[in-house]
Amino acid sequence: MERTTYAGLVNESYLDQTVTLTGWVQKRRNFGELVFIDLRDREGIVQLTFNAKHPQALAIAQEARSEYVLAVTGKVVRRADDQINTKLASGQIEIEVQEAEILASSKTPPFYIEDGVNANEELKLQYRYLDLRRPEMQKNLRIRSKLMASAMRFMDEHDFINIETPYLAKSTPEGARDYLVPSRVFPGSFYALPQSPQLFKQLLMGAGFDRYFQIARCFRDEDLRGDRQPEFTQLDLETSFMSAEQIQNLVSQWVKQIMKDVVDFDLDIDHIQILTWQESMDRFGTDKPDLRIAYEIKDLSSMMADVDFGVFAQTIQKGGVVKALAVPGGAEHYSRKDIDKLTKYIERFGAKGLAWLKVTDDGLNGPIAKFFNDEQAQEILTLSGAKSGDLILFGAGRQDIVAASLDYLRRQTAADLNLIATDRPWRFAWIVDWPLFEYSEDFGRWIAAHHPFTMPNEEDLHYLDEGEDPHQAHAQSYDLVLNGYELGSGSIRIHRMDIQEKMLKALGFTPEKAQEAFGFLLEGMEYGFPPMGGIALGLDRLAMLLAGQDNIREVIAFPKNSRATEPMTQAPTAVDFKQLAELGLEVEPAETPRDEK
Amino acid sequence: MERTTYAGLVNESYLDQTVTLTGWVQKRRNFGELVFIDLRDREGIVQLTFNAKHPQALAIAQEARSEYVLAVTGKVVRRADDQINTKLASGQIEIEVQEAEILASSKTPPFYIEDGVNANEELKLQYRYLDLRRPEMQKNLRIRSKLMASAMRFMDEHDFINIETPYLAKSTPEGARDYLVPSRVFPGSFYALPQSPQLFKQLLMGAGFDRYFQIARCFRDEDLRGDRQPEFTQLDLETSFMSAEQIQNLVSQWVKQIMKDVVDFDLDIDHIQILTWQESMDRFGTDKPDLRIAYEIKDLSSMMADVDFGVFAQTIQKGGVVKALAVPGGAEHYSRKDIDKLTKYIERFGAKGLAWLKVTDDGLNGPIAKFFNDEQAQEILTLSGAKSGDLILFGAGRQDIVAASLDYLRRQTAADLNLIATDRPWRFAWIVDWPLFEYSEDFGRWIAAHHPFTMPNEEDLHYLDEGEDPHQAHAQSYDLVLNGYELGSGSIRIHRMDIQEKMLKALGFTPEKAQEAFGFLLEGMEYGFPPMGGIALGLDRLAMLLAGQDNIREVIAFPKNSRATEPMTQAPTAVDFKQLAELGLEVEPAETPRDEK
Repeated sequence: MERTTYAGLVNESYLDQTVTLTGWVQKRRNFGELVFIDLRDREGIVQLTFNAKHPQALAIAQEARSEYVLAVTGKVVRRADDQINTKLASGQIEIEVQEAEILASSKTPPFYIEDGVNANEELKLQYRYLDLRRPEMQKNLRIRSKLMASAMRFMDEHDFINIETPYLAKSTPEGARDYLVPSRVFPGSFYALPQSPQLFKQLLMGAGFDRYFQIARCFRDEDLRGDRQPEFTQLDLETSFMSAEQIQNLVSQWVKQIMKDVVDFDLDIDHIQILTWQESMDRFGTDKPDLRIAYEIKDLSSMMADVDFGVFAQTIQKGGVVKALAVPGGAEHYSRKDIDKLTKYIERFGAKGLAWLKVTDDGLNGPIAKFFNDEQAQEILTLSGAKSGDLILFGAGRQDIVAASLDYLRRQTAADLNLIATDRPWRFAWIVDWPLFEYSEDFGRWIAAHHPFTMPNEEDLHYLDEGEDPHQAHAQSYDLVLNGYELGSGSIRIHRMDIQEKMLKALGFTPEKAQEAFGFLLEGMEYGFPPMGGIALGLDRLAMLLAGQDNIREVIAFPKNSRATEPMTQAPTAVDFKQLAELGLEVEPAETPRDEK
Repeated sequence: MERTTYAGLVNESYLDQTVTLTGWVQKRRNFGELVFIDLRDREGIVQLTFNAKHPQALAIAQEARSEYVLAVTGKVVRRADDQINTKLASGQIEIEVQEAEILASSKTPPFYIEDGVNANEELKLQYRYLDLRRPEMQKNLRIRSKLMASAMRFMDEHDFINIETPYLAKSTPEGARDYLVPSRVFPGSFYALPQSPQLFKQLLMGAGFDRYFQIARCFRDEDLRGDRQPEFTQLDLETSFMSAEQIQNLVSQWVKQIMKDVVDFDLDIDHIQILTWQESMDRFGTDKPDLRIAYEIKDLSSMMADVDFGVFAQTIQKGGVVKALAVPGGAEHYSRKDIDKLTKYIERFGAKGLAWLKVTDDGLNGPIAKFFNDEQAQEILTLSGAKSGDLILFGAGRQDIVAASLDYLRRQTAADLNLIATDRPWRFAWIVDWPLFEYSEDFGRWIAAHHPFTMPNEEDLHYLDEGEDPHQAHAQSYDLVLNGYELGSGSIRIHRMDIQEKMLKALGFTPEKAQEAFGFLLEGMEYGFPPMGGIALGLDRLAMLLAGQDNIREVIAFPKNSRATEPMTQAPTAVDFKQLAELGLEVEPAETPRDEK
């Protein structure tokens, strides 16, 4: 029996035709001489009926159970009126089966195969091939596939050359922890799985390819959070002889095409906001603002130096800031208890408390209202933009703590109050003019904000010279942001050895260490490397957003869990000691996994 | 200065226009007040002229050297008659440069950047970014890129879902040596880089995706030969509910599309020969025949049992075979010395010698001619198909040695005598009906000819039962062959646990070992896995053939050398001992690399 179409595609246009379908038993209702089976394939579900007119088929139907694989041939007929299901594409018809075959049987699955099923996450990963049968997972991975096809097609049509770069690469310092691969030919030596194709794509520009593109797997051995995986995928491109603005414009067009192809959304490129990093931090407290939320952070520092409220006044005197967020209609929604909860949350950013005011028709209300005279109250309203019925939330203290707190409060209150705009649901922004360096609390030193190959602004090049403060420099870098998520990060690269050497020095590399780590790149730059720049977009995150999911695991076929384990195959596993001997390795296996120590 | 077009694209249609170009100095001829520069970019070369009318530009030209990167603006003018270069697309015109800028300088490269340059292979790999600037390498990688775009587009248009499978996977027995990746969370445990996505794609069929496609990187830690790399790329697909013939037909259409898109060749699918494995071995001595060579191997065993030539007669008596190859026009071309050389070569296959006859108008000629009477001589001519002027080469002995020898002799003599047909330059063939198992001299045991998941022919399933000889079974597998190269290997897969268990048993797995290695797959098959099959084509090899190259390194941007080292970055390298401690690893570095021991 040869399939004639997908089960999920049979509709009224097939009426009276004979079709052969294959698929899985989603549900069976057995009335003895009459059996109904919902047959599922990747396109959807169709109802099969089996009756005594076709005893062979009926016998098969009686034998079949959930998740059996069937092939059936039958006639497409109209359903009885009381059988019509308007929720299904095939809801008007059913197949009267004449012939049936069981292609594979199935044990009872460990969980129901339907969307929203309540099953243990680890169990679902262990039986991933069953969980992936759910319509939602099928849809998610098809969205990801469409996204890749669209991205690739645009790049091909714009003369980008798809070039594969090595996965067995060199371990480099900077950045996250590498996954290592021991060498058998040179025992004691290791390849590293690349954290990105960054260096290779710069070398490809040095090689004159002019426009490079790759869908590249990247690897980072980091502690895992909800939106991180040990391996992830980037839409990676690089071009020569283009300015930052030209690259941003090209990427905007690319994203427009993807949005059209994947979610049929007409993105108006003129709607993509371009914000400097500073402006984004000032207005939204973050470098990845969610522009679907209309209200913004306002700086009230100028008026707070000599108010009676000591907390604010002292903050300003100590060099801190006082900023406010006027949450529209928030006065009624938030009780003191609610506000206590918000306060608790922002303590993780270092906030010492959360001052607030409610705006009524009669003026300001709340425990700190008494500290402001009429004129100051008016100024608070003017500067914060608050209106009657709003809740004003204050951040006071160190710049970065205030930013993180008010960013969180903005997103949380918008979610609570349904203030995330649904018209123009996809709000992209370019964040430009980033600092070249940022201070890393993790490393306890200054690191490259983007990466060590990012070109400073022309006018800031002097900051890398002897005796100047490199941390003043800003960079020719740009992030693409969508609805509060960073989609990708790009920059113009350093193509001159002298600048690259200064940059590495500013990052604390001795000349010897710089040579050891990046000697091949520095040497390459002596042989005519062109001006170049590019970007990498996170495919997993973009697919997640376009699929309407909130975890990238939902758009990855076989993800790792939070301990970097794949519960189905149980990778990683112990290996044969002979294999290790060939690699010149000895292991000291720990009694317990590292993350439990 | 913003580039207006590629240098290599400027031709007569641009006459009198002002253009801005960027690129590399290929060649400079300096006549003081007049300087010519050949400017190269990825599209080709254009001639720039600099003269005293534009002193700023002239000064730049005088400063420029080979491989400097320039931006220039100038007018497209017709060349003087004696300057016309018919070899260049831009040979009728040149650019009179008005403004020039040096974007990057260059040291003198370690070798000339031109095709056919005579430089040490290792040096070229060390400066790969320079070697890649050569027009031929640019062309090769663009062919590869085109091939990927074409392959992807066809798959997208045929509703295949592009799904990425993990690179941090589980180490499995069978097959080649795995590259391992130590786990930090579970010290002493290892991921393996996959040798192919085989198991994952079967699981995706189990998950109901129906049609899967991926351009997948694969990894094998094997000893390297000219056409092997530690990492390589497959065009990988899998489908459900299709027969072997249907899959072959789909792949034939796919390849037809690729040939059209990449090399503009109209492949007639009816010209793709379908040969059983046995027929291919009989006629060509190999499972990957070059069908551009018209002459074939003939079996003369039937007549040789009682000839006077003892070597042949005894071979037959001992159960061996005597086969012959009539090389058209070979009688004159090959001296005894030449034949001695061929003999020497086939000794590596185990051949003990090479008997031969030359055919003249007067009959057979050569040292063994005297052993055959007239009737036998006539039979030799009839069976071998030899005509006057031909050279008959004999293989006598064990079946496999004769096959390997005559396969080699067929290809070598065809190359020597220019007998490789150039009409229909791309000869594809499907080789079908393979043995399920083959005896491996390397392993000293029977192994899966394809892989352990290959479905036997329906009528051969009983061979896997207790007390039968599994090595009799043939498989539902198929190879795609092009011009003597294996492009890819596919099969219908086992989708039932009972058959898979028998197959693993026949391969020597105990039930425990089978569970440990493939338990997740065996368990999956209990939950309704559909009939499935697929194929993987070697992208590197196909790109190599389409680019007219004879080494896959020529179509890989950053290949490894024969010791699996990347001479540019020098990967693999030593790593920080702290990194190893985190992984619970100790290394015992060898004094010398493993391959020199």
